[in-house]
Amino acid sequence: MRPYEIIHRKRDGLPVPPEAIAELVRGYTEGVVPDYQLAAFCMAVFFRGMSPPELRALVEAMLHSGEVLDLSDIPGAKVDKHSTGGVGDKVSLALAPLAAACGVKVPMVSGRGLGHTGGTLDKLESIPGFRTDLPVERFREIVAEAGACLIGQTARIAPADRKLYALRDLTATVESIPLIAASILSKKLAEGIDALVLDVKVGSGAFMKRPEDARRLAETLVAIGAGMGKKVSALLTDMDQPLGFAVGNALEVVEAVELLRDEGPRDLRQITVELTAEMLLLGRVAADRDEARRKVNAAIGDGRGFLKLCEIVEAQGGDPDALADPALLPRAERTVEVAAADRGLVQAIDAEAVGLAAMALGAGRSRLEDPVDPAAGLVVHKKVGDAVEPGEPLATLHLGRAPLEAPEAVAARVRAAYQVGAERVPPEPLVRERIGPEEMA
Amino acid sequence: MRPYEIIHRKRDGLPVPPEAIAELVRGYTEGVVPDYQLAAFCMAVFFRGMSPPELRALVEAMLHSGEVLDLSDIPGAKVDKHSTGGVGDKVSLALAPLAAACGVKVPMVSGRGLGHTGGTLDKLESIPGFRTDLPVERFREIVAEAGACLIGQTARIAPADRKLYALRDLTATVESIPLIAASILSKKLAEGIDALVLDVKVGSGAFMKRPEDARRLAETLVAIGAGMGKKVSALLTDMDQPLGFAVGNALEVVEAVELLRDEGPRDLRQITVELTAEMLLLGRVAADRDEARRKVNAAIGDGRGFLKLCEIVEAQGGDPDALADPALLPRAERTVEVAAADRGLVQAIDAEAVGLAAMALGAGRSRLEDPVDPAAGLVVHKKVGDAVEPGEPLATLHLGRAPLEAPEAVAARVRAAYQVGAERVPPEPLVRERIGPEEMA
Repeated sequence: MRPYEIIHRKRDGLPVPPEAIAELVRGYTEGVVPDYQLAAFCMAVFFRGMSPPELRALVEAMLHSGEVLDLSDIPGAKVDKHSTGGVGDKVSLALAPLAAACGVKVPMVSGRGLGHTGGTLDKLESIPGFRTDLPVERFREIVAEAGACLIGQTARIAPADRKLYALRDLTATVESIPLIAASILSKKLAEGIDALVLDVKVGSGAFMKRPEDARRLAETLVAIGAGMGKKVSALLTDMDQPLGFAVGNALEVVEAVELLRDEGPRDLRQITVELTAEMLLLGRVAADRDEARRKVNAAIGDGRGFLKLCEIVEAQGGDPDALADPALLPRAERTVEVAAADRGLVQAIDAEAVGLAAMALGAGRSRLEDPVDPAAGLVVHKKVGDAVEPGEPLATLHLGRAPLEAPEAVAARVRAAYQVGAERVPPEPLVRERIGPEEMA
Repeated sequence: MRPYEIIHRKRDGLPVPPEAIAELVRGYTEGVVPDYQLAAFCMAVFFRGMSPPELRALVEAMLHSGEVLDLSDIPGAKVDKHSTGGVGDKVSLALAPLAAACGVKVPMVSGRGLGHTGGTLDKLESIPGFRTDLPVERFREIVAEAGACLIGQTARIAPADRKLYALRDLTATVESIPLIAASILSKKLAEGIDALVLDVKVGSGAFMKRPEDARRLAETLVAIGAGMGKKVSALLTDMDQPLGFAVGNALEVVEAVELLRDEGPRDLRQITVELTAEMLLLGRVAADRDEARRKVNAAIGDGRGFLKLCEIVEAQGGDPDALADPALLPRAERTVEVAAADRGLVQAIDAEAVGLAAMALGAGRSRLEDPVDPAAGLVVHKKVGDAVEPGEPLATLHLGRAPLEAPEAVAARVRAAYQVGAERVPPEPLVRERIGPEEMA
């Protein structure tokens, strides 16, 4: 079927044969089918969606557009976690070593921060010497030996996704649930995993602001994953305020280490434990959820998670001493306090605004090719439900070397992100919902 | 506003400021805004439509992307006609000289045939020597002297439309009423006309198969035209069977000449008279519709229309003798009869199928860059309501020199296009509706 006809059918809501979708992706990856035809197709998908067979064909074609790792010779269940992105989301830094410490193999291919959201690669790279661009052979070795390895997407993994994502980003076709699902699954399944846990963030700092969109994405991912013979489950988790306190690359490494030393913020710990426990369940190294949680908590309590992180960091060329001594991590030369203006209780924090404030300090980027400043970022001191007094610090800004905005402007952004009022705010559940195979619920 | 934001707003159904649309078209014409962004925009327009201010901004930007003729120094009302395209639609060949003979100036820029529909330029070029690529100065002279001139779109007229149409043709975004309206109006208003009559075809051989779509297009064209200070009216005319009997370039010239000699088919004559009368009304050379019709009929009856066509053909380099003697026009070396299989009354003729059959004989093209064979085509002998006997000829095929299909295959197509049955079929009105300024109705 010619690309024209595929676009035409999708436009009119008619089914597109799976083979035709496979051809389209192949042609596009090879440069035979032009950008403009894919742009029109993606916009038609935005309006019409995709049926499960169409979406599965899309995922498979994108997955097989490049190298698909085969880790079957490494013993144990290979399980990864993917987050749809949030503010202060340093979960992977603690979760990967914890899961590995509990007996699951974690071959994790991560991304970089963009806009208001951070990225695991940027956080890891704030550890002196840490390399995320390892060759596939070394990645495989570290997964086999240390139990987890965290690298960046190579040019050989799902090139169709890279090309298509860049196009969607320029044509306002990013916000399409089937296209998002295909992008996530094609990259993650190329890692050679057996199971995948999805952390679908929902709220002011998430890509999906509305629970129904988050749920639809989660359901789509779980269904397509299952159709492709993988165990996939999703937790819908709260992103209505930053996760933990730290937002910024080195600052988040410090907070993840605190968690692994049994000293981390409550919300970060809960979400990390729940997601890691889900990995243990899918990887069948725990019989039920309670046992899975106990195992994860034990690996935090006895320091095995922390030691595992040190082992992974060392294997990836990083300095493990920097984990024990934050003074060895990049640090901002100047900090600025953001004082509260009003008295009351924190009603809400616009997490996206906080993420953009951190970006303005140098912690993030608006275009993928821009650098980030590992030392830049901010630490919030008040979370939803906390009492504040005028003049009390809401947050501390860690100024990067080349911030995009003056500290006063960023302080004003942070202050504006806080909504302070008189009402008592009942805490939102951190894990709102689980969507996944029934038998493991 | 950046193209991304324009696409995003249109996608979400939010209003786009007219200046932003103008910028988008300018950027696209200049090659600054890439094809893929326009492709996504067009698909979003397909789903969301355009508001009148948006559409007017689009028409104006496309119109002013190139040269806009100023014919104000030529005395008299400049009025053109545009057809949305059909099968056997040779109306322009008779209408232009008739309108000119009645005192209206007709600066007509026409198109070529594509797919199942024919094009005025291809028909005219079957007259030996006839040139449709005249320079603008010569075009202006012929309009002033002969009263009508028929040429092709120059590279200088509405280049944005040419570029955008080629893109829409590859991205399945042709079938969008606002985009169709913008394409028609930007080209036609660049001719420097005062008024425009639209022949919006509806039926099996038309672009718009459903009356409601045809009506919506007509209403859009009339409203935008009026908003831009032009008199625009539209007739919705029947295209549920070929117009007249001849389909194919030289064959249609012969039939148009027959009409001008008072010998043409009834349906072709009626539609030609109605459309020409509408031009006379908009051009204010007739006080009312009855007078307008009388004038047109008189110009047919006394041969002034035919003489005017000879004058135009001569002015454009063609051989007027070929109009009086069809033997001087290209003729097929071989003809093949298509015999009816069944007895009964013709219930319907799939006009699109007949158009595609003529194309398969060499009379049309599937891509704009392909040549056409002026001699190829077909003549139908039976129309809706006619009685047929088995073995009686339904049509005669005029074989081109390099037909795309064997005559037997084309004959089968034509036979299949005829639906023969027992029921009496009441004739459909040829002009189904008029949409235009009330005061001239």
